[in-house]
Amino acid sequence: MHEHDTPPADPSRRSFLGKSALAGLAGAGVTMGLTACQDKQSTTPAQTPANAQGDAKSAPHGKFDVPPGQLDEYYILSSGGHSGDVRIYGLPSGRTIKEIPVFNIDCMVGWGITNESKAILGTKPDGSAKFKTGDTHHVHGSYRDGTYDGKYFWVNDKLNSRVARIRGDTMECDKITQLPNVQGHHGLFPDKRDPVKADINYTTRVFAGAEFHIPLPNQGAGLTDTAAYGCLFSCLDAETMEVRWQVRVDGNMDLVATSYDGKLAASNQYNTENGVHYEDMMPAERDACVFFDIARVEAAVAAGKFVTIGDSKVPVVDGRSQANSDPKTALTCYVPVPKNPHGVNISPDGKYFVCAGKLSPTCTVIANDRVQAWFRGELKSPRDCVVGEPEVGLGPLHTGFDGRGNAYTSLFLDSQIVKWNVEAAIKQFQGDKSAKVILDRIDVHYQPGHGYTSMGETKEADGKFFNSGNKFSKDRFLPVGPLHVETEQLIDISGDKMVLLHDHTAYPEPHDAIIVRRDVIKTRQIYDMKEFPHAVLDPKSQKIERNGKKVTVYLASQAPAFSMREFTIKQGDEVTIILTNHDKVEDLAHGFAIPQYDICFIVNPQETKSVTFKADKPGVFWCYCPHFCHALHLEMRTRMIVEKS
Amino acid sequence: MHEHDTPPADPSRRSFLGKSALAGLAGAGVTMGLTACQDKQSTTPAQTPANAQGDAKSAPHGKFDVPPGQLDEYYILSSGGHSGDVRIYGLPSGRTIKEIPVFNIDCMVGWGITNESKAILGTKPDGSAKFKTGDTHHVHGSYRDGTYDGKYFWVNDKLNSRVARIRGDTMECDKITQLPNVQGHHGLFPDKRDPVKADINYTTRVFAGAEFHIPLPNQGAGLTDTAAYGCLFSCLDAETMEVRWQVRVDGNMDLVATSYDGKLAASNQYNTENGVHYEDMMPAERDACVFFDIARVEAAVAAGKFVTIGDSKVPVVDGRSQANSDPKTALTCYVPVPKNPHGVNISPDGKYFVCAGKLSPTCTVIANDRVQAWFRGELKSPRDCVVGEPEVGLGPLHTGFDGRGNAYTSLFLDSQIVKWNVEAAIKQFQGDKSAKVILDRIDVHYQPGHGYTSMGETKEADGKFFNSGNKFSKDRFLPVGPLHVETEQLIDISGDKMVLLHDHTAYPEPHDAIIVRRDVIKTRQIYDMKEFPHAVLDPKSQKIERNGKKVTVYLASQAPAFSMREFTIKQGDEVTIILTNHDKVEDLAHGFAIPQYDICFIVNPQETKSVTFKADKPGVFWCYCPHFCHALHLEMRTRMIVEKS
Repeated sequence: MHEHDTPPADPSRRSFLGKSALAGLAGAGVTMGLTACQDKQSTTPAQTPANAQGDAKSAPHGKFDVPPGQLDEYYILSSGGHSGDVRIYGLPSGRTIKEIPVFNIDCMVGWGITNESKAILGTKPDGSAKFKTGDTHHVHGSYRDGTYDGKYFWVNDKLNSRVARIRGDTMECDKITQLPNVQGHHGLFPDKRDPVKADINYTTRVFAGAEFHIPLPNQGAGLTDTAAYGCLFSCLDAETMEVRWQVRVDGNMDLVATSYDGKLAASNQYNTENGVHYEDMMPAERDACVFFDIARVEAAVAAGKFVTIGDSKVPVVDGRSQANSDPKTALTCYVPVPKNPHGVNISPDGKYFVCAGKLSPTCTVIANDRVQAWFRGELKSPRDCVVGEPEVGLGPLHTGFDGRGNAYTSLFLDSQIVKWNVEAAIKQFQGDKSAKVILDRIDVHYQPGHGYTSMGETKEADGKFFNSGNKFSKDRFLPVGPLHVETEQLIDISGDKMVLLHDHTAYPEPHDAIIVRRDVIKTRQIYDMKEFPHAVLDPKSQKIERNGKKVTVYLASQAPAFSMREFTIKQGDEVTIILTNHDKVEDLAHGFAIPQYDICFIVNPQETKSVTFKADKPGVFWCYCPHFCHALHLEMRTRMIVEKS
Repeated sequence: MHEHDTPPADPSRRSFLGKSALAGLAGAGVTMGLTACQDKQSTTPAQTPANAQGDAKSAPHGKFDVPPGQLDEYYILSSGGHSGDVRIYGLPSGRTIKEIPVFNIDCMVGWGITNESKAILGTKPDGSAKFKTGDTHHVHGSYRDGTYDGKYFWVNDKLNSRVARIRGDTMECDKITQLPNVQGHHGLFPDKRDPVKADINYTTRVFAGAEFHIPLPNQGAGLTDTAAYGCLFSCLDAETMEVRWQVRVDGNMDLVATSYDGKLAASNQYNTENGVHYEDMMPAERDACVFFDIARVEAAVAAGKFVTIGDSKVPVVDGRSQANSDPKTALTCYVPVPKNPHGVNISPDGKYFVCAGKLSPTCTVIANDRVQAWFRGELKSPRDCVVGEPEVGLGPLHTGFDGRGNAYTSLFLDSQIVKWNVEAAIKQFQGDKSAKVILDRIDVHYQPGHGYTSMGETKEADGKFFNSGNKFSKDRFLPVGPLHVETEQLIDISGDKMVLLHDHTAYPEPHDAIIVRRDVIKTRQIYDMKEFPHAVLDPKSQKIERNGKKVTVYLASQAPAFSMREFTIKQGDEVTIILTNHDKVEDLAHGFAIPQYDICFIVNPQETKSVTFKADKPGVFWCYCPHFCHALHLEMRTRMIVEKS
């Protein structure tokens, strides 16, 4: 055996690596699972105190850098836009810790390839995934007592009108629901408590706003009768993911926000003109933010005051303004907001909804209690819900909050983030000309869309970081041809002045995100084998079952081998391969790839997945592990032998 | 108009942003292309001097951080493993600047969705992309005079035996070739000059090594006659991407390297035992590194000394050892190397090939001139080509070079990078016991696979950085459930001791990469409209052409509108949409997404793309721009009206 010329830097670390491994390898009976490190961690890293110094031998680092060996302080859960995925970044490092395939096809994980993922995505008659495209915009988490409980995260698909749910413990998508009679599902937000039952202080509903107005139903009739086009606001059950009800509204909807008291949901609206060409979507000086009285909507549904549309069984109530002229019975309240507003966000104290003007250089502050007063008939006009409307700059789009009374609004045209004080804006609106509304501005690079603060969508907003998701990166990174990556800029908002910390990159094109304190997320790092009904529990129970032309292959993986060294099937068989990963070491995933058969997926520790395909090509096919697992990773293969029919 | 409360930080920057934009928006005739910044850059960012201070208002940074506004010094072009893509990172920042879809499906770009990408990927009878999976391992660039010329990059697909080419000017994949009679195409390397013609001092061939041995042809005969299984080494033409010839070899092949003089290609080999179960792939104490005499191979092909296999027309010469026992006429030389070696790399001075031992704690140094001497019949045995075999540590896999005579080898089992001196190793092999071979070791986290140095695969190796691609990240990042991201660790190798700089993340699972100086890469940042034969050159030439049931829609995009506001087709039509992006501003991409029709793609500035689909659903479908382009991005839509048949 060899001797090290230099002593190991950290002997304790080295105790679980090293020589025994080679000894195991050299023998005929290669030790299963020596693989990777042998340290079985019973705690997840987030529970480990961060090493403020980083590793030995690492270079000195700046204040907000995350040195090697140190963990980030926050998770960013971000949409991936028309990449169709959801990403998790670490903050402040900006590192992408996970990409969760949701509406896209991902051959690394096998998303859209395994039977389990296709059951979630839905399938076409030929068994392939129903869609391979998606467009995610807004990720939001489940709440308890006004802050994240880490249980679920939801994300919209604007392209094919779907809502997906991600489990907080595994960070994998577990359910997808397609919304009926909806096109361009853009905004999404969970509720924060029940509007009626005080003991339900957690999320039980998810709201979804549709952007495009279409014939209802959209089955070929009324194609050009644009005045009759309509748009629906949807409510899903947070647990079953079934659509509970829908509300028909005037105009298009964009983002969604919900009140901390559970009573209201809101959606900013552009194109209240119902135009079908862009210049007809702009003439009105004011569009609206529409508010939904959730308890009243559900009472109307319970009272049977609904219709259904087309093939859908979902009850649809009428939330258009004409049908809701009496505030005391109205389901909806349309608060006028200038002009094609983009984005609606609620302040962490629960008091104010803020809509950004987009084509107006203003933000509009709408008081939650005033909207509820309007619903009680106590206000003359919906516009009386507005308590502030500061001028903030050109192209305001989205607003985050610091929990200290300040708002941070992205200015698309000015390429800036503007910091402004909400109470000062209210005083100014009341006529106080001395009110100091605008506190600071910082340039971003370039054209910011969404911006969001650490814990800013919860009552625990901590005012430490603002992340600016910029739509153009232009000269910020090395040139890589016509397609640019996006810029994410992290800003320190803990002081009076904003300080730019980092430029990071993001594959196009992230929209919204949330910044979640790391203690909120409690993940399982290994699956439980028993939760998979088809798990191959005993590697010795590997077998091939034949039922006519249907063949099922039961396989287990344990580094560096699949339990079956080869298996023989016949051309024309419909083959299902079920693979259970018996390795228990954290991070020890295996994969399964079949050449020419377009099959590739991974199984994480103790996980089971399956694929089904037609054995249409005769020959020998080396099914191999594509996920590096062991010193003998390359040797980890099994032969699929397809006999000619 | 509003006034800014605080003055802009950089007035020159602000001159191209700002108020004129809103003025344009407010009118009925919204200014086309105001969008984004108006600064038309005639130079690419890499030509701009880096701002060593970064932006005003940014926080202080460590020595190797890249502050906001500053550019990276190097490109890393990395494989994506079974994600099927290629990524470009900046170095030293570790930021992912681009993800190039290659063998995967990508709904952001529209890869696997547009007609243009499907023409490159190949299609099934139903018109969908032939494969949606791939497994990229090794990215290498085209050479001129021993260093990168930035023209092309190639990458393998181990899963479906393909070679893809990426254009250096656009950083997009432009050609894919499937290798005949090959399974598990693992290693890939371009040549560096012609073996015969001295004036060809640039890449004209790409070599590809196959890992899995299979029946030849693999059509259902000889399924279990494993002794007759075979493996082919392939040569493609760098320009046409056609397969020029193949060589049948003994054993499995892994990586590929080429000599700087153009005369040799090499591939490390495990499983010279031809085993089909992993324990049968290990008993031999030595496997081999096989060398190919390129000139002789091509002379044999020219002389007609070849066979063809199955349906393939590609000439296949016999490179098995039995047929090549006379060195003076041999096409191949099998140099014995212990034990299941992994990786072969050539030193920047062109003198030495280094194979890592994987199951032996050694690296084997093979002299280029000795191999050529063997081919001239001047050596007794191929093993005489070996000039060094230092013990380096457990599980050596891959080796990089610093251009100062030192090698850096990743140790999978030891989780270290070991720095060793090549000439000292040669002296030690010659019996000099005082030779100081091992110079330094550094822990990495955890289980490194590939490691590579800045410009280390060229004669311009500069010895500044080593990047370690680690296969397990375990506790290095915040926990995100059972699926972990990979760790990339950047190491400063400019001094005597290695210094760890950063931990970065990478979506599983990058294998190999190259680190390229930024001046090498010369990208175009905007396409030339005329290079697309179907470009809609004049937005006014928008039209719908009908030919029976085949309908072609010619569209142009210019922010914030598509040239046609709506278009009407009939249910059952086969519709082709051709879209040309008329915006000329760098980074101003548009997208085109059709709800329910599973269509999503982007068009970069001055680019043209098309899609073809069956209009099987009647109704109104709002085709929208999914790539944020303009303040009126949401309003950028066109209606596809599908009349019921």
